[in-house]
Amino acid sequence: MKVVQTATLPGFSAGKLMLKPFSGERLMIVRVEGPKGALAPRHAHPHEQMTFILSGRVRFRIGEDQWELGPGEAIHIPSGYEHEAELLQKSVFIDIFHPIREDFLRKIIGAES
Amino acid sequence: MKVVQTATLPGFSAGKLMLKPFSGERLMIVRVEGPKGALAPRHAHPHEQMTFILSGRVRFRIGEDQWELGPGEAIHIPSGYEHEAELLQKSVFIDIFHPIREDFLRKIIGAES
Repeated sequence: MKVVQTATLPGFSAGKLMLKPFSGERLMIVRVEGPKGALAPRHAHPHEQMTFILSGRVRFRIGEDQWELGPGEAIHIPSGYEHEAELLQKSVFIDIFHPIREDFLRKIIGAES
Repeated sequence: MKVVQTATLPGFSAGKLMLKPFSGERLMIVRVEGPKGALAPRHAHPHEQMTFILSGRVRFRIGEDQWELGPGEAIHIPSGYEHEAELLQKSVFIDIFHPIREDFLRKIIGAES
């Protein structure tokens, strides 16, 4: 078992976004925070993803579709789908992955060394 | 892709708790809400679990250990570990599972029929 305060976990930045991963074995959650205008540019990964909005407002674009999500709303992004997220307000959300994002763990290690 | 407002999903009750699952393929999140004193009695499942607290305060007991978690805090419960959760205040939290809880999906279907 591990217990954490996600807001104070070690993290790394990606553009204007700050990402703070909390990893299990085959599950990872990542606290993501950023100002209005912050962008996770279009990308894809084999990991299945869900995102749950804690505060603010985030626009997701997947293919030709787009959705604006606010607090309590969640989106499911299947494995391999290209997606983009743009913060329409200062926002905090939780990204959830299966399996874990090993690339994120390496970034934290890099940030601490 | 699926987008939902987790608070208004169909759900089912377990004791004093109301559970509202949102399922992907190998990831499921469940919005759980209950009053002070609500209890998820000691249980175990093969699914790996994380729980992220949105509001309130929840006491987890795992083996001889216990933790009290508040907003922004998260706990990782490995596959197969017996655990109990007791709400010390009216609380809302997100349970996260891999793989999905097929048993939860059957309960929703049962509740709708």
